[in-house]
Amino acid sequence: MPDPAQRDLLMRQEVSRQTGGLVTLTAAEQKLGAYLHQLKEQEMSAAHFPPAMHFFKAKPLIQKSSIFKLLQKMPKGAALHIHSSSLVSVEWLVKNVTYRPHCYICFTWDNSVRFLFSDRQPFPRWDCFYWQLLETLRAKIGDPTGFDNRLCNISSSLTDAKLRCDGEPYPQCWGFFWVFFSLMQHLTLFTEDPDGEYPDQDVVWEKFEKAFIAAAGLITHAPVLRDYFYKGLEELHQDNIMYLELRSGLSRTYELDGTIHDKVWTLKTFQEVTKKFTADHPDFLGARVIISVHRALSVSEVKAAVKEAIQLQKDFPDVVAGFDMVGREDSGRTLWYFREALSLPAELGVTLPYFFHAGETDDEGTDIDQNILDALLFNTTRIGHGYALAHHPLAKELSRKRNVAVELCPISNQVLKLVSDLRNHPAAVLMSEGHPMVISSDDPSLFGTTGLSYDFYQAFVGIGGLKANLGTLKELAVNSIRYSSLPGHLKDTGRVMWQNKWDAFIAGNS
Amino acid sequence: MPDPAQRDLLMRQEVSRQTGGLVTLTAAEQKLGAYLHQLKEQEMSAAHFPPAMHFFKAKPLIQKSSIFKLLQKMPKGAALHIHSSSLVSVEWLVKNVTYRPHCYICFTWDNSVRFLFSDRQPFPRWDCFYWQLLETLRAKIGDPTGFDNRLCNISSSLTDAKLRCDGEPYPQCWGFFWVFFSLMQHLTLFTEDPDGEYPDQDVVWEKFEKAFIAAAGLITHAPVLRDYFYKGLEELHQDNIMYLELRSGLSRTYELDGTIHDKVWTLKTFQEVTKKFTADHPDFLGARVIISVHRALSVSEVKAAVKEAIQLQKDFPDVVAGFDMVGREDSGRTLWYFREALSLPAELGVTLPYFFHAGETDDEGTDIDQNILDALLFNTTRIGHGYALAHHPLAKELSRKRNVAVELCPISNQVLKLVSDLRNHPAAVLMSEGHPMVISSDDPSLFGTTGLSYDFYQAFVGIGGLKANLGTLKELAVNSIRYSSLPGHLKDTGRVMWQNKWDAFIAGNS
Repeated sequence: MPDPAQRDLLMRQEVSRQTGGLVTLTAAEQKLGAYLHQLKEQEMSAAHFPPAMHFFKAKPLIQKSSIFKLLQKMPKGAALHIHSSSLVSVEWLVKNVTYRPHCYICFTWDNSVRFLFSDRQPFPRWDCFYWQLLETLRAKIGDPTGFDNRLCNISSSLTDAKLRCDGEPYPQCWGFFWVFFSLMQHLTLFTEDPDGEYPDQDVVWEKFEKAFIAAAGLITHAPVLRDYFYKGLEELHQDNIMYLELRSGLSRTYELDGTIHDKVWTLKTFQEVTKKFTADHPDFLGARVIISVHRALSVSEVKAAVKEAIQLQKDFPDVVAGFDMVGREDSGRTLWYFREALSLPAELGVTLPYFFHAGETDDEGTDIDQNILDALLFNTTRIGHGYALAHHPLAKELSRKRNVAVELCPISNQVLKLVSDLRNHPAAVLMSEGHPMVISSDDPSLFGTTGLSYDFYQAFVGIGGLKANLGTLKELAVNSIRYSSLPGHLKDTGRVMWQNKWDAFIAGNS
Repeated sequence: MPDPAQRDLLMRQEVSRQTGGLVTLTAAEQKLGAYLHQLKEQEMSAAHFPPAMHFFKAKPLIQKSSIFKLLQKMPKGAALHIHSSSLVSVEWLVKNVTYRPHCYICFTWDNSVRFLFSDRQPFPRWDCFYWQLLETLRAKIGDPTGFDNRLCNISSSLTDAKLRCDGEPYPQCWGFFWVFFSLMQHLTLFTEDPDGEYPDQDVVWEKFEKAFIAAAGLITHAPVLRDYFYKGLEELHQDNIMYLELRSGLSRTYELDGTIHDKVWTLKTFQEVTKKFTADHPDFLGARVIISVHRALSVSEVKAAVKEAIQLQKDFPDVVAGFDMVGREDSGRTLWYFREALSLPAELGVTLPYFFHAGETDDEGTDIDQNILDALLFNTTRIGHGYALAHHPLAKELSRKRNVAVELCPISNQVLKLVSDLRNHPAAVLMSEGHPMVISSDDPSLFGTTGLSYDFYQAFVGIGGLKANLGTLKELAVNSIRYSSLPGHLKDTGRVMWQNKWDAFIAGNS
């Protein structure tokens, strides 16, 4: 028989390799850890296991979970992978922003919506010709709550709308028709029937990009953006997060009278809001921006963007962390396609840290799949998603050796249909090997999450399984500061701030 | 910019690590390989990608695939993981076996069916009381083809049956009712609505075990078993497979008059049939048995089974390859639970090679998940499934160092709901690292496959992605002989036989 002591040793050795496997825990931490383990056993043996279900169906179960409630209270460190257009919960956009004066709405022919703040009736645009003041529309409809919130199944609404429209002349019919697509529905991916409504990645990405465009008119209104950033930091802070690195294209913003502000204005606003927020909340460390451009651009456009990013980083060294390329990888251009643009900083003898999205794909061996290796060859500081990394042994070694952390966004990967049951997420391999990793939420507002607690739940319970323990959580939180773009002394400050919060968390929950 | 030559080198180095990455290909092989790559690009960019779909929906697409047609012709070596109760296609069971004289059928209360060959009216049994001669029943029904084949949705059939049954007294109603569940449907897992009909692993495993029990009465009839083995070898041979290791419990068999034969009879029959088959087909190498017992047994029962297996291996060294434990891992007992029984051979100073199922689970960190390490500690020769191996870095190293191959059964894992999109199968990690691996089909008749071509398709196109190439296929085929239980000289024979077939295959397809 295998020697039981030797067997125990091997089992412990294996566990010691996982994320947090070498973290030593205090007696109080061990107590809380044992409690968490017990809770996890219960949740794993329940009839419905949230990580195995689509998040839209799992969310109410997660909200009831005792583990989730603990994770909400846990100081999670930093959020290092969030896109600026989906930072703040849609509820706030609808309930607060769309109720502000001068907010116009326009329904497009392709089932989407545009917003515009304007002190006069907006001109028809190519994508949208009939602008209505939201205030007036709401008064006409008479069911503002339904209009704001209804998150129903689009196909059933279409039928319903058709039934109502029969015989009614446009635009009466048009009005009825669009009421069924509530504002919320236009701004998030949520649906009660995710598998039916999003049969494949193409369909879900189409809706995803539509929702981004729909929100843009609200967010890029200059006075809104200021509040939006503040509200975004507030939501993170409420979820016990203390630092943010925000991927942002630094969109130009507009005023009521149509005046346009440039990127520098956006960056300065972000800086000012962050300063105000940290003054109001001294236990919040700050926020920085990763300048992001879309991979649909041409090489020369990306060249210009890289040059601009170099300049902005020089002018705002405290705020600008670096550069990234965004947009769906599977249908976009590869990093190697942009190699000339991405080589500019080195050629110019300057440093522009990269935080590349790479390997957000299921397709193995394609040119896109090669982004993983190329991100590393371009000396990326972290890898956004890195979903495909586990299938790239050489790139995986390189990433580990260079301490390049993967930004794991489990809910995003599931909702965007890379994986259905999160127990099959390839990060389970990385986690079992203690690969450098942080947890993030990607596009919280689009998925219906706030903060990082939902993604921590999925990573801890689903991807980590029973093996992941309190040491795993602790290491993931510490990693978020360790792998941030902060300079050394701020990392030290952050680490101390976090440790105090952590100690209080343990003291309050053991 | 990263040096393009250096980048190419790294890419080639990464590819060289995958299964078959170090195989050198002849010019003719390279030509066929390039053609395969091109076909794969086409299939990956089509609207519906079979490995991403449920196999029951993907099967007609796969059958049309040019890659699949090539894989059918390719000499695939050995099938090392097939269970005896699901070796032969259900079509043969229904169209041939159930048409033999004296075949009785009985419908159970829990939507299943039993068969019995008997020279007199069978006695009622605890699970089944009303036995009808199939011949008589078929004559009554008048729609034998529908009765045999109909593979409809159970729930819709139930409604249909209820409509017909309304007002009809039993047993007229009973007759109608059961006709809707065709014989095929009882003997396979196939359904047009796999996601609806099998919402979770529990439900699909229940149907799985029912189908096994349903088939048992047909297969364990002594004259049938003889034909069954022969037919099984024939189906493999037709799919260009040359050797089989069959997991079998060596069920006792029965004659028309109720006489019972013991396990030795079954083993001898298997030996005789194999001998006859190889005489009839000189390009077929042979077949061996891995004696398997269910993990629902008690420790003392397993002890007895191990002792018996030791004796049978001594008596039939050419036929008995070793020992395994079968049945669903997630709801069964662990290998460690049976440690006393499994230590018997070592204690007795004899060798009984193990071929343990291990890690056929999505649940990480459970006691069951520990089977992976325990299988290795008990010196298993191969690992059945090893689905969880990629999440066990230490066990993975051990398995690699000891040359313990994983028996990958992709379609089984998908149908039994471990993973939905096969691109997310954890074996993609193992394949990218060149981990010892063979491809098998587990329970072909239950999943509606024959031979290994369907599973090779899923492994090559889905799990391996674009990266997997002709070298991968070649290595997987060679592995099946390398990791078989055959003695060295027979491996050499097999390897030479396979090489001749392979050369002919290449010559015929380049």
